[in-house]
Amino acid sequence: MSDAYVSPFAPADLPKLVPVAGVRFATGNTGLRYAGRDDLMVAELAEGTAVAGVFTRSKTRSAPVDWCRDALCGGKARVLVVNSGNANAFTGKLGVEAVETTAAAAAAQFGCKPSEVFIASTGTIGVPLDASKIAAKMPAAKKALSAKAWEKAARAIMTTDTFPKVASATAEIDGVPVTISGFAKGSGMIAPDMATTLSFVFTDANLPHEVLQALLKDGTDRSFNCITVDSDTSTSDTLLLFATRAADHKPVKKPTDKRLKAFKKALNALLIDLAQQIVKDGEGVSKFVAISVSGAAGAKAARKIGLAIANSPLVKTAIAGEDANWGRVVMAVGKSGEKADRDKLAISIGGIPVAAAGQVVPGYDETPVAAHFKGRVIDIAVDVGVGKGKATVWTCDLTHEYININADYRT
Amino acid sequence: MSDAYVSPFAPADLPKLVPVAGVRFATGNTGLRYAGRDDLMVAELAEGTAVAGVFTRSKTRSAPVDWCRDALCGGKARVLVVNSGNANAFTGKLGVEAVETTAAAAAAQFGCKPSEVFIASTGTIGVPLDASKIAAKMPAAKKALSAKAWEKAARAIMTTDTFPKVASATAEIDGVPVTISGFAKGSGMIAPDMATTLSFVFTDANLPHEVLQALLKDGTDRSFNCITVDSDTSTSDTLLLFATRAADHKPVKKPTDKRLKAFKKALNALLIDLAQQIVKDGEGVSKFVAISVSGAAGAKAARKIGLAIANSPLVKTAIAGEDANWGRVVMAVGKSGEKADRDKLAISIGGIPVAAAGQVVPGYDETPVAAHFKGRVIDIAVDVGVGKGKATVWTCDLTHEYININADYRT
Repeated sequence: MSDAYVSPFAPADLPKLVPVAGVRFATGNTGLRYAGRDDLMVAELAEGTAVAGVFTRSKTRSAPVDWCRDALCGGKARVLVVNSGNANAFTGKLGVEAVETTAAAAAAQFGCKPSEVFIASTGTIGVPLDASKIAAKMPAAKKALSAKAWEKAARAIMTTDTFPKVASATAEIDGVPVTISGFAKGSGMIAPDMATTLSFVFTDANLPHEVLQALLKDGTDRSFNCITVDSDTSTSDTLLLFATRAADHKPVKKPTDKRLKAFKKALNALLIDLAQQIVKDGEGVSKFVAISVSGAAGAKAARKIGLAIANSPLVKTAIAGEDANWGRVVMAVGKSGEKADRDKLAISIGGIPVAAAGQVVPGYDETPVAAHFKGRVIDIAVDVGVGKGKATVWTCDLTHEYININADYRT
Repeated sequence: MSDAYVSPFAPADLPKLVPVAGVRFATGNTGLRYAGRDDLMVAELAEGTAVAGVFTRSKTRSAPVDWCRDALCGGKARVLVVNSGNANAFTGKLGVEAVETTAAAAAAQFGCKPSEVFIASTGTIGVPLDASKIAAKMPAAKKALSAKAWEKAARAIMTTDTFPKVASATAEIDGVPVTISGFAKGSGMIAPDMATTLSFVFTDANLPHEVLQALLKDGTDRSFNCITVDSDTSTSDTLLLFATRAADHKPVKKPTDKRLKAFKKALNALLIDLAQQIVKDGEGVSKFVAISVSGAAGAKAARKIGLAIANSPLVKTAIAGEDANWGRVVMAVGKSGEKADRDKLAISIGGIPVAAAGQVVPGYDETPVAAHFKGRVIDIAVDVGVGKGKATVWTCDLTHEYININADYRT
């Protein structure tokens, strides 16, 4: 890991996370891998907390992901335990035992069922995890719980991240104010096919599991499923949404209830904010890139075309080199496999038309496009000329620093 | 382009290409883009030459690819015209006109139908091609034709290549010796979903279009469709196989004819050789990587898993960094979307078992694996534990030099 590197998008001052009633955190060091920093985060959730989750679709998903998927059936959560530095992925039977050990220790300490303990791990794949070191920290964690330790919690789950990703929002449900606060980690191995990275969002809204799950799934499709750093989908991607139900509004039983309008809007914006922050801390990032696709056969097709552009190493290196080589965007549209009309294709960069009707615009002047490419935020818009499908995806460029970070991650 | 960089796999002495009866070449400079080197290659093919072809599946394929696909219906070829430096892709109506101009000029000069002229272009996308500069060279090309100019022809079609890819083979059909000689170009934008790059193979075998086409399709699936440099599929990928039919063996009418056994074997080996040479000249290559997948649901699934590993930036950078981080191989298997049994997964590197039954092997010693990673040729074998499907794919690593080359390709 290259210690000196910090994303140019790292905020000078971290936004303040607004506490959520019913949520307390403790952090600590297990000695599992990192020295001199917290690598364990424990969240205690008030009795009655409902939970929703989305997870990686990887066929080699980690033991903690399997655990959470099972635990989600109950719809209730009391404890969240997260460690960084070891993903507990591809660890076979030992991995399953490690998760069981952690859940049992947390359940005993916090007085709940093991199935109300949610677990996530992030870090190196294939290294057996000694969960006794996590279990041993449970008593200290319980004592240290604080309703204010949000930033410490966000920092404890980081791996190659250069800044914690945090966001808070408020909304009203039925006239009653509710809070949503969350944080995420992730920098490499970011290519969602569901949720990506580890992200934890908390609200005091009084919503049951079924409603939360529907809102989360919908929100994920517009946020975490629209980002990519390196096209590599993690074994461990986990996004959990906890509702402590402390807010004093009347029960809401359906995700389609109109009283959820403001809450949905706030939740979706918060998820997009967190997802964009992950891209802004993408490994080696020097530019943040928004790719808007229109005119596709449908929204899914538009997203697939957007991701083909966003994942193209040739597009990403051109952006890193500030080279307005838009021919590579044409190539990426072509390789996506989705319908596109080559002879209607239109591209604009930074709002400036570059190509229309399948060729470069007459009298094309590269000067303003080259100037846009010198900025930190790059906008690429593509219309593929076959339908009304739209999507926006977000990515970063591919730089020398990405190679530095990943050619010696474990050393 | 970084001029100093040369692939470590560039051969000290280029293998000699054995001439094929009925094929003559001329090369020249059009002034379209490159100075001080040939950028035009013209091949004259004897009357009666049959042709087969496979092409990119890109939705934004170039005008020359469209032209060749149409011309292939006739099954006959008399002239091949290839220029480097400008792909004539995403050039709209002008691009179609450029191809027509080239075909008309070549047909007039060589006394054939325009539909017997095959055309390929490689280079920058989106720049209108002034085909009058190609047409103007036709008389000089006809005069300069030589049966010996194979190497010059192979060099004239290069772009970011650091060495020409050439191969020759001989075989017997029905007791009569036949020759196969071919060359290819390609270094970046290499991720075949059909043929990839520009590759031209010539033989004097007396085979009709239908037989050639079947043999070429089959051979491509085991060669060019099993390589990747950067996951980016070109707009221009073209592989043409010409048979001048000069060899004096009895006609062969079916691709399944047993007399073709030796020819098939030689052709397939030659296609694999050319495809591997492209990977060995992959942009910024420092290691050549062979990935063998077994135990998949089928051969297609095995290839898809292999390509997921081969295209993973995290796997490729780990190899560049000589870091035996095999957990990233596990990740890539998981993201492929194909069936895999996580708890039966086995991996070996350089023939050394690393993981079995879904976890690291007992007493794993990284020393010999790390030593293998220091070599130029890396072997990764993965068994995914669900069936009998097998495939081998080839790729290269992802290095700083890749970023150097692609961050300023056009400058």
